[in-house]
Amino acid sequence: MTTVSNSNNAHEGSIPVEPAVIGMPGHNIVLGEQVPLSLVSGQKLGPFTVSYQTYGKLNADRSNAILVCHALTGDQFAAEEHPITGNAGWWNMVVGSGLPIDTDRYYVICINVLGGCMGTAGPRDINPKTGRPFGLSFPLITITDIVAAQKLVIDYLGIEKLFCVTGGSMGAMQVLEWASKYPDCVLCAIPIAGAARHSAQNIAFHEVGRQAIMSDPDWRNGSYYESQELPNRGLSVARMAAHITYMSDSALHRKFGRELQDRANVSYGFEADFQIESYLRHQGNSFVERFDANSYLYITRAMDYFDLAAEHDNVLANAFLNTDVKFCLISFTSDWLFPTSESRQIVHALNAVAASVSFVEINTDSGHDAFLLKEPEFFSILSGFISAAADQSNI
Amino acid sequence: MTTVSNSNNAHEGSIPVEPAVIGMPGHNIVLGEQVPLSLVSGQKLGPFTVSYQTYGKLNADRSNAILVCHALTGDQFAAEEHPITGNAGWWNMVVGSGLPIDTDRYYVICINVLGGCMGTAGPRDINPKTGRPFGLSFPLITITDIVAAQKLVIDYLGIEKLFCVTGGSMGAMQVLEWASKYPDCVLCAIPIAGAARHSAQNIAFHEVGRQAIMSDPDWRNGSYYESQELPNRGLSVARMAAHITYMSDSALHRKFGRELQDRANVSYGFEADFQIESYLRHQGNSFVERFDANSYLYITRAMDYFDLAAEHDNVLANAFLNTDVKFCLISFTSDWLFPTSESRQIVHALNAVAASVSFVEINTDSGHDAFLLKEPEFFSILSGFISAAADQSNI
Repeated sequence: MTTVSNSNNAHEGSIPVEPAVIGMPGHNIVLGEQVPLSLVSGQKLGPFTVSYQTYGKLNADRSNAILVCHALTGDQFAAEEHPITGNAGWWNMVVGSGLPIDTDRYYVICINVLGGCMGTAGPRDINPKTGRPFGLSFPLITITDIVAAQKLVIDYLGIEKLFCVTGGSMGAMQVLEWASKYPDCVLCAIPIAGAARHSAQNIAFHEVGRQAIMSDPDWRNGSYYESQELPNRGLSVARMAAHITYMSDSALHRKFGRELQDRANVSYGFEADFQIESYLRHQGNSFVERFDANSYLYITRAMDYFDLAAEHDNVLANAFLNTDVKFCLISFTSDWLFPTSESRQIVHALNAVAASVSFVEINTDSGHDAFLLKEPEFFSILSGFISAAADQSNI
Repeated sequence: MTTVSNSNNAHEGSIPVEPAVIGMPGHNIVLGEQVPLSLVSGQKLGPFTVSYQTYGKLNADRSNAILVCHALTGDQFAAEEHPITGNAGWWNMVVGSGLPIDTDRYYVICINVLGGCMGTAGPRDINPKTGRPFGLSFPLITITDIVAAQKLVIDYLGIEKLFCVTGGSMGAMQVLEWASKYPDCVLCAIPIAGAARHSAQNIAFHEVGRQAIMSDPDWRNGSYYESQELPNRGLSVARMAAHITYMSDSALHRKFGRELQDRANVSYGFEADFQIESYLRHQGNSFVERFDANSYLYITRAMDYFDLAAEHDNVLANAFLNTDVKFCLISFTSDWLFPTSESRQIVHALNAVAASVSFVEINTDSGHDAFLLKEPEFFSILSGFISAAADQSNI
């Protein structure tokens, strides 16, 4: 159940909400029942449902928990078969027995973000006051709100201090927010392929995706859940545009080049002549099976609004004053969406407060998506930093 | 009047075509009346209308003609007010009296490309056999076809040899096609921010734009001309996505950063909070006023299909064997759509045939669109090369 309130008084004007998807596999808990979550927008949310998965076992002193934060279109199914697509978990090469985030040693938690569509409260949920889905009346959420909801889950699990918080892309934004807002609750932080603020170019790409969705007549100003048609065409185009940004020019050249798809000659028409076209169309078509268009609007907006320096007098270092968190930043050479320069800015800010910080740029042509792919050097760095930190802390 | 034929016999099965836009300012001529143009697709086109503009005066020995080839969304109005938008010509800083392409010295020709929507035959034109617009029944055109139509214009003007052919982006593709196919008709060639083949990434971005258009219900499989609504939402999204690729990350940061548009705080909603969003929406909305959605499909496809090496046993150098054309290639450091590496490949091919070739990479943060912007070093290079070549040829 989710409740949204515009009131400053938690006990007034609550809008109760029921999850639209009942019975998401894994853990589904209701939070914010006693005290609603105060969102950055000024609205109050609660009670609301949060869905999460765990892997491995929490040790006796609750010191071995690693929070894995998912990216824009990720979810809590990091290391197991996805309940809708049947695909392997999005980080199944990283999280598991004997893997860099070793579930034999650590207790791994992965939480579907606020605004999402895999069980955690989002625009697809039912507003009990109306009996109908929220759509755009769901409150805007921010990275701060996403992390605040995660903090409630961690509290619920009785974990006072996370051994590690990590994640790529939007996951890295959450890692930075955790380290900045709750430094006493984080032992080490590994933001991967991230940034301390969303760039103009990235906002631009997000805006294109949103406009693709919002210009689909089936979007119906966000109130499409009860109609026959979902805004799948717009959502598919949004995904296609975004997917290009997740890869590098050279990876696209290597994987697809100008190869034709199942034909000897071009069609002299608008079929998917080229493999890259067929691949992109597939990416768009398969995405709409598992993702909600309004959630895409909400979560892209959360990323756009992220600007950690702006919350600290425009001095990024102020976000990390006196921090004891051990940082390890990782970027990828061919990532043009969250280029190394963005990670370097964070490193400079951490240096300015004499924080403990490692920084590794991994050489790869796989682009932004490298954090989701088989990258041995990346796995080695991740594994090495985590196990060394765990050794130091006797975990 | 335009005629399309599927027959190998020019006198059989012709489909006569009337231009949808009558009275485009400037020159409108009918070509291919006696012998239709044989398109790469195997179809035959003719008679068909071509619209073009000229600036300056053709000298007595017809030796001072410069053909300026426009880019994807450009047109023949290079150096004068656009008849629809009222904006200045797209190359008004380059073409004119005393400018790098000096109309006091040269006779400048700029031709709307085949498949376009500014007077030259394209999918918006009327099929006289049906009395209705062609839509998708207009034949697919290629860069080869576009240049073949230009060659007919040059023949019509009585020009045996162009002093220079130049253009940026898709214009550069036409320049390369000219130099390769009609080397005896070109004295010097200046491909700017171009490539000898369209990359996988660029095909991908074009496919996103096409899918945005084709998924707009108002597109109606290309037969929208007689309906109340044009596929402007899809075309606008296509333009927005493309426009991001024309700029560099750093230029977007410099121009817009994370600045808000006409507000002190974010809206916590989906308004155009950021300047970059407002700018992109404006780009999309203004584009649909001057461009036809089907033309956008056709011309992007022409670019996708361009692969000069593929036409020459996959050896790019073979496209320029024994060439006497003097080349000057220009690229821009921050252009990630047509990066310098693409120009360098062409230079290597030209070196391999001992061609006369200059190559300059201009340092700028303006991205691909730099060839349309105030770039003094670019102007200086262009002016220097052209005037030196003209001096050598006593023009």
